[in-house]
Amino acid sequence: MEIRSSEFLRRVREVRPLVHHITNYVTVNDCANICICAGGSPVMTDGEDVADMVSISSATVVNIGTLNGRTVDSMRVAFSTASEKEIPMLLDPVGAGATPYRTETAEMLMASRPTVIKGNAGEIGVLSGLGGDVKGVDSYGSSDVASAVESLARATGSIVVATGEIDYVSDGNVTYKLENGTDMLGNVSGTGCMLSSVVGCYIGAFGRSIGAVVSAVTAFNVAAEMAVTRCDGPGTFKPALMDAMYNMDGESLDDRARYEMA
Amino acid sequence: MEIRSSEFLRRVREVRPLVHHITNYVTVNDCANICICAGGSPVMTDGEDVADMVSISSATVVNIGTLNGRTVDSMRVAFSTASEKEIPMLLDPVGAGATPYRTETAEMLMASRPTVIKGNAGEIGVLSGLGGDVKGVDSYGSSDVASAVESLARATGSIVVATGEIDYVSDGNVTYKLENGTDMLGNVSGTGCMLSSVVGCYIGAFGRSIGAVVSAVTAFNVAAEMAVTRCDGPGTFKPALMDAMYNMDGESLDDRARYEMA
Amino acid sequence: MEIRSSEFLRRVREVRPLVHHITNYVTVNDCANICICAGGSPVMTDGEDVADMVSISSATVVNIGTLNGRTVDSMRVAFSTASEKEIPMLLDPVGAGATPYRTETAEMLMASRPTVIKGNAGEIGVLSGLGGDVKGVDSYGSSDVASAVESLARATGSIVVATGEIDYVSDGNVTYKLENGTDMLGNVSGTGCMLSSVVGCYIGAFGRSIGAVVSAVTAFNVAAEMAVTRCDGPGTFKPALMDAMYNMDGESLDDRARYEMA
Repeated sequence: MEIRSSEFLRRVREVRPLVHHITNYVTVNDCANICICAGGSPVMTDGEDVADMVSISSATVVNIGTLNGRTVDSMRVAFSTASEKEIPMLLDPVGAGATPYRTETAEMLMASRPTVIKGNAGEIGVLSGLGGDVKGVDSYGSSDVASAVESLARATGSIVVATGEIDYVSDGNVTYKLENGTDMLGNVSGTGCMLSSVVGCYIGAFGRSIGAVVSAVTAFNVAAEMAVTRCDGPGTFKPALMDAMYNMDGESLDDRARYEMA
Repeated sequence: MEIRSSEFLRRVREVRPLVHHITNYVTVNDCANICICAGGSPVMTDGEDVADMVSISSATVVNIGTLNGRTVDSMRVAFSTASEKEIPMLLDPVGAGATPYRTETAEMLMASRPTVIKGNAGEIGVLSGLGGDVKGVDSYGSSDVASAVESLARATGSIVVATGEIDYVSDGNVTYKLENGTDMLGNVSGTGCMLSSVVGCYIGAFGRSIGAVVSAVTAFNVAAEMAVTRCDGPGTFKPALMDAMYNMDGESLDDRARYEMA
Repeated sequence: MEIRSSEFLRRVREVRPLVHHITNYVTVNDCANICICAGGSPVMTDGEDVADMVSISSATVVNIGTLNGRTVDSMRVAFSTASEKEIPMLLDPVGAGATPYRTETAEMLMASRPTVIKGNAGEIGVLSGLGGDVKGVDSYGSSDVASAVESLARATGSIVVATGEIDYVSDGNVTYKLENGTDMLGNVSGTGCMLSSVVGCYIGAFGRSIGAVVSAVTAFNVAAEMAVTRCDGPGTFKPALMDAMYNMDGESLDDRARYEMA
C-alpha cells in the first residue's frame, strides 16, 4: 500500500477533529498544543462530564501517565462511551510494566478494544506478553518489536504502534517500519504523549486506518527532524517542534517520509 | 471615557497583586507565568486551604476548564470567601454550553456575582441567554456579541468580556469594542485562560473598574501583536508573548491601543 | 571541603537516576524536563501505585505546591516508603507559612526526616522557627538565613537549602553560601520547583551528600546565568535554561561556580 502522508495531513486540517483527552497532568499542555498544530481541536476533561464531552468528539485519547482511582473511572467511562457511539479511541499505556497498577489499568482499558494502542517498545512488549523492559515511564526496549506489535494487534484487533529509535505500526496483517525521527525526542518529557494526540487527530478524521496512523507518526517525526535543526537543546526543541508541525507542508512531508513494510 | 492603558500597567506593576487561581491543569503553567509577566504574583491552590489563600489574595480567578466534583467545591469556597471579604473575583466559564455540567457550574458560580465574567463569544452567548455556538472548549461565535455582553452585564452586575476576533467589554452601561490582537492567539491552547489571569491582576490592583478590564485585555492583545512578529509559529509565539508582556512599555501600549465605545 | 561540581555533574549523567516526584500541577512539566536536562529520568505518580514506583526509584521529590487531601496521603506514602527502603527524599515545602494547612503538611512530612529540605528563605525561616515572611507561595526573606538553615538542619538531620538572592546550604555542621544565579529566576513560575528536581537527581545518584546538593544548586544557577544572556525575557528564558542545563560542560561549571563556607 502506498501511503501519501500529504493527503492525510490536508484532510486532518480540513476536518479539524475535536479530540477529547484524558491524559496526565505532566504533559497535558504540550498535548493540547501539538493537537492544534496538527490540525485538531483539543478538549480535556476527566470530570463528571466525560461522557457528554466524548459524545461530541471525533476521537478520544486516554493516557495513563498519572492515574488515580478517580481518573481511572473517568477513563473507563470515556472508552465505554466511545465504544457505544463508535468514536475512535486511542490508548497510551504509559508505564505499563513498571507497576502492577499501570499494567492492570492498561489491560482493563484494552478490553474496550481501542482503535489504536500506542506505547513505547517496552510497554508494548509487556502488553503483548512477549516481554519488555520498563523502568519508571521510560522504556528500554523489547527484543523483537515487530513481533510484539503484530502479536498485540492480532490479540486485540487494535492498530498497534511501538515507538523507539525505529517505530513499528501493525494492524495484525501488515506491519510498517518507520524510520523518521531524531534522538532529541528522548530528551523532552512527553513527546510520546504528544504523538498520541497527533494520532488522535488522525483517527478522529479517518477512523480506523493504518494509513492514517502511519501518516500521523511520520508527520510528527518529520516535524521533529526539522525542529532539531532549529534548536540549541531540549528547551528550544519543543517550541520548534510545535512550529514545524504547524508549518508542515505536504510536499516536504512526502519527500522526507521513510517507511516500509517490515 | 478616556482610558490610558499605560497608567493601569504602571500601577499593576507597583501593586504586584497576589492573584489566587483555581484553573485547569492544561494551561495553569502559562497562567502563572503570564501573571508574573503582567506584574502580578500568582498562587494556585484548590485544596483544603482555599479559603485561607483567597483571604490573603488581591483577587481570585476561577476557570472551569477541567472541573470535577472536588474542584467545583473548591471554586464555590473561593467565590464565597471572596464575596464575604470583598475580594475581586473573575469567572472564566470555559466550555459553558458544551456540556450541561459546565453550563450549570458556570451558572452556580455566577450567582456569587463575580466582578468579571470573561469567556469567548460562544460561552458568553450561552450564558446571556442570547445563544452561542460552542464545540468542546472552542467557541464559534455568537450572532450579536455586543448585545450579549451588555445583556449579561446587566443581568449579573458583572463586567463582562467576550473574546473573539474583536473583543467586547461591558459593565451594562457602557460597552467597549477592542480591536487589538492577532489570529495566532487561536493557535495556542490557553490564551483565553492567560487573558483571565491578566485581568485578574488588574482587578486585583483596581477592583471593579471597566477601565482596568479594557486596559488588561488591550495590554495582552498588544503583547500578542508584538510577539507574532518575533515567532515562527505557535510554539515560539507563546514564549514571545510572555516576553512582550514582561517588556511592555507604556508608551508603545498607548500608541497601539485600539478600542472605542461600541 | 573542596567541591568539584564537574565531577558530580558527570556522575549524575552516568547514573541517570530515576527520580519520582509528587509535585504541583502548575510546574510539573518544567520539573520533568529539567530533570532530563540535568541527567535524570523523571517519573510522576501520586495515585495508587506510589509505593511501587518509589520502590524502584533512585530518589523521591515531594513538593506541596498544590496539595489536597488525596495528594497529601500520597506524599505520606511516598516518604514512608522511601524511609523504609532508604531511598533519598527531598521535601519542597512550597507556601509553608502562607496557610496553616501548608505549614502543618510540611511539618508532618518533615517527621519522615527527608534527606533534603529545600525552600525559599521565608519558608525555611518559618520551618526553622526563626521566623520568615511568606505571602502566597513567594517568600520575602528571613532576617538571618544562614542561621535558619543551620538550625533547621540540626533539628531535623536533613541537609537544608534556602534559596534567595544568595542561597544557603547546611548540614548542621557546615554551611555554604552560594552566589551564582540571576534575578530572572524570580520572573518564571516554578524555578524553585525545578531546582528541587535537579537536587533530586543529585541525591538520587549520591545519597546524602552536601557536596552533591551544593553542586546541584550551583549547576542550576550557572545554567540560569548562561540562559539569561540568550533570552529576551521570562518566556524565552525558560527554554534557554533547559538548553543550558542540558549543554552544561564541566569546565565552564567549575570556572563559574562561586560558593564558600558561610
